[in-house]
Amino acid sequence: MDELIEAIAAKQNPSVVGLDPKPGIVPAEIISSLADEVLQEVEGEDALPTLLATAYFEFNRAIIDAVADFVPAVKPQIAMYEALGSAGMDTYAMTCEYAKSQGLVVIGDAKRGDIGSTAGQYAAHLSGFANLSSYFEDENATGNALPQSLKNLLKSSKNLDVWHEDSLTVNPYMGSDGVKPFIDEAVAHDKSIFVLLRTSNPSSKELQELILQDGKPVYEHMADLIENWGASSIGKHGYSRVGAVVGATHPQEGKHLREIMPHTFFLVPGYGAQGGTAQDVAGMFDANSEGAIVNSSRGIIGAWKKSEDYAKNQGHMSLDDILDIVRDSAAVAAKNMRDDLRNAVYR
Amino acid sequence: MDELIEAIAAKQNPSVVGLDPKPGIVPAEIISSLADEVLQEVEGEDALPTLLATAYFEFNRAIIDAVADFVPAVKPQIAMYEALGSAGMDTYAMTCEYAKSQGLVVIGDAKRGDIGSTAGQYAAHLSGFANLSSYFEDENATGNALPQSLKNLLKSSKNLDVWHEDSLTVNPYMGSDGVKPFIDEAVAHDKSIFVLLRTSNPSSKELQELILQDGKPVYEHMADLIENWGASSIGKHGYSRVGAVVGATHPQEGKHLREIMPHTFFLVPGYGAQGGTAQDVAGMFDANSEGAIVNSSRGIIGAWKKSEDYAKNQGHMSLDDILDIVRDSAAVAAKNMRDDLRNAVYR
Repeated sequence: MDELIEAIAAKQNPSVVGLDPKPGIVPAEIISSLADEVLQEVEGEDALPTLLATAYFEFNRAIIDAVADFVPAVKPQIAMYEALGSAGMDTYAMTCEYAKSQGLVVIGDAKRGDIGSTAGQYAAHLSGFANLSSYFEDENATGNALPQSLKNLLKSSKNLDVWHEDSLTVNPYMGSDGVKPFIDEAVAHDKSIFVLLRTSNPSSKELQELILQDGKPVYEHMADLIENWGASSIGKHGYSRVGAVVGATHPQEGKHLREIMPHTFFLVPGYGAQGGTAQDVAGMFDANSEGAIVNSSRGIIGAWKKSEDYAKNQGHMSLDDILDIVRDSAAVAAKNMRDDLRNAVYR
Repeated sequence: MDELIEAIAAKQNPSVVGLDPKPGIVPAEIISSLADEVLQEVEGEDALPTLLATAYFEFNRAIIDAVADFVPAVKPQIAMYEALGSAGMDTYAMTCEYAKSQGLVVIGDAKRGDIGSTAGQYAAHLSGFANLSSYFEDENATGNALPQSLKNLLKSSKNLDVWHEDSLTVNPYMGSDGVKPFIDEAVAHDKSIFVLLRTSNPSSKELQELILQDGKPVYEHMADLIENWGASSIGKHGYSRVGAVVGATHPQEGKHLREIMPHTFFLVPGYGAQGGTAQDVAGMFDANSEGAIVNSSRGIIGAWKKSEDYAKNQGHMSLDDILDIVRDSAAVAAKNMRDDLRNAVYR
């Protein structure tokens, strides 16, 4: 978690921009500007997914360019890309890679989770090909049937990254053995995870707030598990590689969780469009104004919709025009969020 | 769920074959046989992922061909493909599409879940492009900025399927509003979901067995939620479109859940390699020997490892030779599983 904490400190900005493109958030002008070029090259069933995936990437690049100088991290939500099929997954990986190249920390919001051996495969989000390559070196398993040239290729692919994330969100419904493979790879590859704890949506209470025999809610029991999972990977700023997702829509619970989870860094969704305010999230930071990063997606990537420039020029804009408006609007909105959080958090 | 129930009845076989390729399960001979061809066409960072993704598909096709005549369904586990990046995701979609073309019901094991609006994007696994297309028809959102040619393309893409699954596993940690979008699309597109309830892994107890104030474990509370989520989509065989995942490693709990969830069809992992027996799963079927389907992955797709033919010919086999051995071994193992379940379940 150290890299993220240091990026926040360097930019004095505990916010992360959610890269959640979808129809209605990505301006139709971007899609239509790219249509001729893409549809000439790709035909049939791949045409539309490829067009949208191309538009999503152009949109994301504009947002990344607009915020990279003063925002520490981005959080692409993989569901938006998965909705387009594998063309979308390509855009997801390209987006992560581009964001990293611009100096941003990339938190992949994939909420993956499964039983141990399967979680180990999902953990390739953090390990890249390192895990697969080592498997092929096991002569007993498969190694002795591979020609030398292929063994060499596998050896040289150890550092091959497939998704290009620095961190990944993880779902804990299956307990420790489903989370441990992610922690192991985070430790091995200097990365981190955020485990779902108290999500921002209204019906999260149906499971997370159930009261247990000892009088505590389920989420407090989960909090103990998470703090415990991180105990052996505490970094130089006092936080472990195992963070937690705590929604801005639960300010009191968030404050309490901050107290009982001293080594767990929080990823806080739900600010802005979902109703959370800077005051709501302030209690999720520690006494040094550290310990949390607050996400906003729609409020920043959809800011172009409220721009006067857009209203004025709608219907006769080039690709460059609309990308300019997207960039300018996102930059203003992201700076407003930064200043809003600074006022509430940096006491 | 009717389609799955009828496929099981037609083949008198309540089993599903898990398509979980990974190094060590996919014979190295398949990978090395394809290496020259693939590596000539694809270079750089894409080379190795493309080679493995190609090998995974050849392997899956052999398994599908071997079992399609007498097995009703397959369950590809998306984590295995995701570990290869977007090349792997292509193979996942191609595998689902090929299995459907061979008359199999495809249960996508993706364990997706998120808050409402995001879950709606994941639900494209069930809706394909229908949801996205309708979004673009909303003139207020984006429609009026799209040229007519693009609107036509979107209209004609309504039936575009991106992942080709008939059913999807879903994680309920976030409660109703995270599950409802999947149910809505399942209903709209004649598909189904399986919600994680009592997973087969040892540490599932850490959350799922916690005892609540009313003396019941968390999973029983979840059982009530799931039965309730399905109440409005009960089909002609008495089961709803909202199934549940119940591990074969919990035979007593499974029997009890069968009693308190009369309209919920069970997907039962954990048979075979994970230790569950036909006797263990028998109690998860109803009085008509319906109500559940049992998964085996490694026991079937890894059966080639124990074949005498493989031991004899290792080191000098063509691609056709090894695929023959994979097919023959999988067919024998899948028939043994069918007969084992028939004896225990069809009373």
